[in-house]
Amino acid sequence: MSDFDFDLDRASRAGVGEAIFCAGKSVEQLNAFLGDWTGKGPAIFLTRLSPERAGALKVAPDHSFDYDPISQTAILGSLPVARHAGVVIVTAGTSDVPVATEAARGLAVCGYDSETVKDVGVAGLHRLLGRLDTLREARLIIAVAGMEGALFPVIAGLVRAPVIAVPTSVGYGVTAGGKAALNSALGTCAPGVLTTNIDNGFGAAMAAAKILGIGAADE
Amino acid sequence: MSDFDFDLDRASRAGVGEAIFCAGKSVEQLNAFLGDWTGKGPAIFLTRLSPERAGALKVAPDHSFDYDPISQTAILGSLPVARHAGVVIVTAGTSDVPVATEAARGLAVCGYDSETVKDVGVAGLHRLLGRLDTLREARLIIAVAGMEGALFPVIAGLVRAPVIAVPTSVGYGVTAGGKAALNSALGTCAPGVLTTNIDNGFGAAMAAAKILGIGAADE
Amino acid sequence: MSDFDFDLDRASRAGVGEAIFCAGKSVEQLNAFLGDWTGKGPAIFLTRLSPERAGALKVAPDHSFDYDPISQTAILGSLPVARHAGVVIVTAGTSDVPVATEAARGLAVCGYDSETVKDVGVAGLHRLLGRLDTLREARLIIAVAGMEGALFPVIAGLVRAPVIAVPTSVGYGVTAGGKAALNSALGTCAPGVLTTNIDNGFGAAMAAAKILGIGAADE
Amino acid sequence: MSDFDFDLDRASRAGVGEAIFCAGKSVEQLNAFLGDWTGKGPAIFLTRLSPERAGALKVAPDHSFDYDPISQTAILGSLPVARHAGVVIVTAGTSDVPVATEAARGLAVCGYDSETVKDVGVAGLHRLLGRLDTLREARLIIAVAGMEGALFPVIAGLVRAPVIAVPTSVGYGVTAGGKAALNSALGTCAPGVLTTNIDNGFGAAMAAAKILGIGAADE
Amino acid sequence: MSDFDFDLDRASRAGVGEAIFCAGKSVEQLNAFLGDWTGKGPAIFLTRLSPERAGALKVAPDHSFDYDPISQTAILGSLPVARHAGVVIVTAGTSDVPVATEAARGLAVCGYDSETVKDVGVAGLHRLLGRLDTLREARLIIAVAGMEGALFPVIAGLVRAPVIAVPTSVGYGVTAGGKAALNSALGTCAPGVLTTNIDNGFGAAMAAAKILGIGAADE
Amino acid sequence: MSDFDFDLDRASRAGVGEAIFCAGKSVEQLNAFLGDWTGKGPAIFLTRLSPERAGALKVAPDHSFDYDPISQTAILGSLPVARHAGVVIVTAGTSDVPVATEAARGLAVCGYDSETVKDVGVAGLHRLLGRLDTLREARLIIAVAGMEGALFPVIAGLVRAPVIAVPTSVGYGVTAGGKAALNSALGTCAPGVLTTNIDNGFGAAMAAAKILGIGAADE
Amino acid sequence: MSDFDFDLDRASRAGVGEAIFCAGKSVEQLNAFLGDWTGKGPAIFLTRLSPERAGALKVAPDHSFDYDPISQTAILGSLPVARHAGVVIVTAGTSDVPVATEAARGLAVCGYDSETVKDVGVAGLHRLLGRLDTLREARLIIAVAGMEGALFPVIAGLVRAPVIAVPTSVGYGVTAGGKAALNSALGTCAPGVLTTNIDNGFGAAMAAAKILGIGAADE
Amino acid sequence: MSDFDFDLDRASRAGVGEAIFCAGKSVEQLNAFLGDWTGKGPAIFLTRLSPERAGALKVAPDHSFDYDPISQTAILGSLPVARHAGVVIVTAGTSDVPVATEAARGLAVCGYDSETVKDVGVAGLHRLLGRLDTLREARLIIAVAGMEGALFPVIAGLVRAPVIAVPTSVGYGVTAGGKAALNSALGTCAPGVLTTNIDNGFGAAMAAAKILGIGAADE
Repeated sequence: MSDFDFDLDRASRAGVGEAIFCAGKSVEQLNAFLGDWTGKGPAIFLTRLSPERAGALKVAPDHSFDYDPISQTAILGSLPVARHAGVVIVTAGTSDVPVATEAARGLAVCGYDSETVKDVGVAGLHRLLGRLDTLREARLIIAVAGMEGALFPVIAGLVRAPVIAVPTSVGYGVTAGGKAALNSALGTCAPGVLTTNIDNGFGAAMAAAKILGIGAADE
Repeated sequence: MSDFDFDLDRASRAGVGEAIFCAGKSVEQLNAFLGDWTGKGPAIFLTRLSPERAGALKVAPDHSFDYDPISQTAILGSLPVARHAGVVIVTAGTSDVPVATEAARGLAVCGYDSETVKDVGVAGLHRLLGRLDTLREARLIIAVAGMEGALFPVIAGLVRAPVIAVPTSVGYGVTAGGKAALNSALGTCAPGVLTTNIDNGFGAAMAAAKILGIGAADE
Repeated sequence: MSDFDFDLDRASRAGVGEAIFCAGKSVEQLNAFLGDWTGKGPAIFLTRLSPERAGALKVAPDHSFDYDPISQTAILGSLPVARHAGVVIVTAGTSDVPVATEAARGLAVCGYDSETVKDVGVAGLHRLLGRLDTLREARLIIAVAGMEGALFPVIAGLVRAPVIAVPTSVGYGVTAGGKAALNSALGTCAPGVLTTNIDNGFGAAMAAAKILGIGAADE
Repeated sequence: MSDFDFDLDRASRAGVGEAIFCAGKSVEQLNAFLGDWTGKGPAIFLTRLSPERAGALKVAPDHSFDYDPISQTAILGSLPVARHAGVVIVTAGTSDVPVATEAARGLAVCGYDSETVKDVGVAGLHRLLGRLDTLREARLIIAVAGMEGALFPVIAGLVRAPVIAVPTSVGYGVTAGGKAALNSALGTCAPGVLTTNIDNGFGAAMAAAKILGIGAADE
Repeated sequence: MSDFDFDLDRASRAGVGEAIFCAGKSVEQLNAFLGDWTGKGPAIFLTRLSPERAGALKVAPDHSFDYDPISQTAILGSLPVARHAGVVIVTAGTSDVPVATEAARGLAVCGYDSETVKDVGVAGLHRLLGRLDTLREARLIIAVAGMEGALFPVIAGLVRAPVIAVPTSVGYGVTAGGKAALNSALGTCAPGVLTTNIDNGFGAAMAAAKILGIGAADE
Repeated sequence: MSDFDFDLDRASRAGVGEAIFCAGKSVEQLNAFLGDWTGKGPAIFLTRLSPERAGALKVAPDHSFDYDPISQTAILGSLPVARHAGVVIVTAGTSDVPVATEAARGLAVCGYDSETVKDVGVAGLHRLLGRLDTLREARLIIAVAGMEGALFPVIAGLVRAPVIAVPTSVGYGVTAGGKAALNSALGTCAPGVLTTNIDNGFGAAMAAAKILGIGAADE
Repeated sequence: MSDFDFDLDRASRAGVGEAIFCAGKSVEQLNAFLGDWTGKGPAIFLTRLSPERAGALKVAPDHSFDYDPISQTAILGSLPVARHAGVVIVTAGTSDVPVATEAARGLAVCGYDSETVKDVGVAGLHRLLGRLDTLREARLIIAVAGMEGALFPVIAGLVRAPVIAVPTSVGYGVTAGGKAALNSALGTCAPGVLTTNIDNGFGAAMAAAKILGIGAADE
Repeated sequence: MSDFDFDLDRASRAGVGEAIFCAGKSVEQLNAFLGDWTGKGPAIFLTRLSPERAGALKVAPDHSFDYDPISQTAILGSLPVARHAGVVIVTAGTSDVPVATEAARGLAVCGYDSETVKDVGVAGLHRLLGRLDTLREARLIIAVAGMEGALFPVIAGLVRAPVIAVPTSVGYGVTAGGKAALNSALGTCAPGVLTTNIDNGFGAAMAAAKILGIGAADE
């Protein structure tokens, strides 16, 4: 085990962007980071950044800083050119849009575009079935749903693409906090569903980028 | 509050059959009951009666005793004439059949027939959609599902009938015990879903009989 | 399975009103909806709408908008003529009134009136027994209770009507959040109790309307 | 720590009998105890003693050993003369009888008789109300119930005596294990309910004996 | 069962005071009650009344209204003469004092005085043992503790009096919310512990009054 | 929405094998299936089939039936030619091997081979680091771990491939049942971890096959 | 980070014995290990080895194999000379002895003796206080308790030594499985309590050996 | 009970500092304490003291009062001379720093210095391995981590020192509140991990001081 070769460079080639989870950090800490940042290298993705704190950040005037209040995320620096990889992001309801947007923007930071299909929760199954062509043409689906999370097994039963389920904390009573939706994703016997933590749109994007990078690695 | 009139007779007209929950009772206790029973009056429904204990019961030779090992239920006495009321019982998978059968036999004790649509879990949505005509003609649906329980919101989104959801304890990992299916039934925003306890096919039948009796009461 | 006929029209005949769950939507989104609404067609039911957000909505001057701060619901448009269908809504305590009112107003949107029996929690059983005539004449009961939820089995043991139990999040310690009341509703062996999610007065109303529509469907 | 004066005699005057919880002890350990026992002093109460293990115990021929298979308890030695103290033990259903019997026998070991009112669960409220005179004459009530445990608040709302609630593990689905019944006992706003652990009939008896001993202490 | 005699008068003799749980009621509702109150009859106990809301109440100038901000309770009307009944209230720490004060004031409303022993949590067992004389002379102990709740079994092992355990929501991490303390009270094998809901000092007082009333009933 | 085209054929091209979850099915039901099976078409994967029940199955003599007692799975029919796709299955300990084997055999049914790296739990990190070359050359990793599940984040931090985490029910105390391992998989901030239900080696294989099929679809 | 020096030798000097957790391993696997073992080097500790499986093991005739049915552990090979380090193992009740014995034998494998103080649960505090001298002379205490686990904070409040708490799964109702005892250990404010997993006597021994090795390391 | 000899002096020699948990105490209570304090004797450690409340405290001008807003702790009085004992505090991420600082300052109050290794969560294992020399030279490690808590088993597998795990409430979804991190600490099979309550940096410091005091006691 001597002469262990820890390949940091290879790690940097992994194809997932840099990110900062801002929820547990002070404005001072974030500004210190911004002050250190040279503006070179790939874009940085900042998640869980409230509008109040985003407004208090000091970004150098020549740095691009794209803040989105819906997803409470920011992109610092220039995005890479977006490749089309057939990712479709599906949401059950309006309240799931922030998490879906976090996923879409996270994919953009990794260099992938995506298409979003909104508001196709299973309570109105005809809306979902009406978008079936789009879903079936997808190479990879990120499904975002709270409440009882029935969207996950229903989509998985309809498409050939793998489905990354992102349960959301949208709900009340027994669905408050997102565990019911999480269990629907984990518990289904529909093949091809894999799951992230509740509200983790960013994690879904990183996993999607890694999956999409499998093919690229073979080239 | 004096001269309180507690109407026991009216209670006996409630239209739901008598039942004995056998799980917590000894063979001696059950045989004592069977010995006391005169054979007159409506049929008695025995639930949670294992084959071993059913085999140890002493039924008078002139009494009808119909035991079903799948649902582990017995019907003591003669069933009433079955009325057709448009009840459809739907199951997600083979493992849900015992609970569905308990519901069907409970309905029979209350004087209602039912139709069963089996094995239409949402992992293969086309099977469910293939039975959509039957589901849409139903006046009342009893849906029986374990695992993640996505059948409940999907059906509710497709039909006009009210849906009685019976979550089952079928599952493993996060769905073991039936709470994930229960939460799918409770947590959906699809309108018209009401829920029983896990594995309570009998309770679904009693509630269905009471619902079907609403109209009868007006005559 | 080709030429699948998805009957949207039939779905629209289901007899339950349109509704908007406002908790996860911005004032901008709600105002966009209000701006699109023509005022034609059945009334719209808005739930979980706080007084502050209700005050910020822009309703066209010729549109009826009836906001109720107790239940935090609004009815947009004209109510249908109320049919009398024998629905009785029962509450255990004062704190359960908002959820009960949501149910009553939801029924009104669906075209049914209802009678409310308040403050008959089982801690003072004589109050409940004092209203027994009303309860026994009901064709359908919606029972609303928090804390330990003993109201559900007690009522079900006293009446012939089916009981829709709506557990509420009223309580503290072991009853905080409503799960204890929910489990009382699900766990009782009293026949005829069916359950909604915690605090889901709207869901109870929709299910009640579907149940009451069973008879209408036969006409 | 020298000369520490711990008043053991006073402890022995506390009025609760000696007891052995047999669940975690081997037959060898129990027989060792039986071999040591002189037969003098108050009776010993053995709980959670299965019939198989009870049959393997070696009791000296001149020692009284009264085993009850229903409650799986044994009384070793002679019972004290039973005082009448107005204790009424109430059970919701047949399955609660073992725990209730453990309580009654525990009280007997402490020198108190008791009356048992069986099978008065709230699903058939008339049965409970039919025994109201007995309940209201009680000075202390031990209520034993599983499932949803609604018996606890209902009794507490009807009587002036304090109510010791003993939740049982009788139930399935959401009531399996006894937590739903426990929460009904803890969560009620009906005054005067105090609670033991699930299935702890013995604990209820000990607490009852201590409560009944309050008056005796003043003499 | 006809001519049922529901004894309301007897209920009123039960010896527990009237109380209003203010947490779920508006200032308007509370003022309506205060306006109706004649000032005759026993004192009324108001619990969970925040200082802000207490300040907004309109009490008739000739009515006594004693508000305590620590326990957030108020006593409306004149207290009965306090009887000495040997009740000792014990707290584990400073944070448990509000709940203990609610219990003491609840007892006062029922006509009993009490002594309080503060800050004797088991982390410093010598403080508890230093008050052993007081504890052993008590006829009834109300123990109030949060965190891990070890005070309950320790006291029960030291005294002959019954112990009413009141777990509090004081704690963080695994003890946040009070369930750990509750389980310590329920789970101990020390004889004579009975439990209320978390933070329910009022319930402990009511149960204590009922227990103390047992002797009185015999006179 | 009329003329809906439900593409069943396309579904059959999804690239995941047929499977039967045997846990909830009787030997009779399984034999009925085996009797119907013609032996044509792709191999069938039977999961959760105990040795006792496997021994009672009646397989036609000319049908291949490969039973593995470790994973309690059977493969009915001929496997497709195995493609090499760079899948590495990693296990934390010996007890995780059955689930890992279920995954490997599931992949074989879908036409993919895999390499297994055993017994590299993080308690001995040097063993894991000693296999780093293999892990880093993988295109897709299936990690199988029970107990505290720390293997999932550690691997994800070391490799560029996406990681499918399969928590197992191996453990005792707080890790019994697998939820602790599941939460480690869901909760990590290491990028690229996606999760299946506890013990769901089959589900991991199906998802892996779908992911590996993404590239194939583009050809 | 190149030339990483992974010090395996140092790891082997850590002073904790080798151990095999037998619960998840087959007799075949265990016998394979026994066949490979040369008998040289330190003793091996086998935990969670049932008597049936222990009886089926094939140990070479010249190898020492000391099986203890109480703790279900075996020691393979010769124990090191026992050093006296002032470890006292304390148990609350008879049912905790197996876990305590696992700890004592684990310490012996690591080369430390220990003294055991049995049956000093807090329900009889005088027994614990009667052993206070022994407890106060201890340099390190391993406390083993189930039920409500009050032993942990009580001991910690009495002694200067650090306390390793080992919660056990002894209990029923709310204490079943050991989480109540675990939370008592974690939740106490008594200083100096650290905790292992439920029933993990082995883990307590390993941690104790590491703690006792701190001083040795400085020599 | 007279002449009870409780050795308070010995308790004061235990080597852990005095501390006040401020979360449940009012500013008035804290100021009363400060007014009573003479300034003699060892320093006092105040934990969970928010900046607002710290600003409202009245400290005598000649008393040292060192407030740290990160950990929300204060040290009242002069610190003892810091001994070097080889304690290393490790944090997984920036959000764990407040708890780590509470531990470091708690150690300082007890007279021990410590070194902190920050931001070495396992998502980037190379950072942790890069600090391996420091970790392996430690005599005692306090590891502070939230999220999935994989840092605990990984460190324990790498070092010979005992590891005190302090789970933090840092996280969201399934890791919110800290139970996932707690279970990783409790559930690992890596030897030598002991655990405190969630966020209990103070408790870790007290236990560490007691452990470090073992050697001192022998002198």
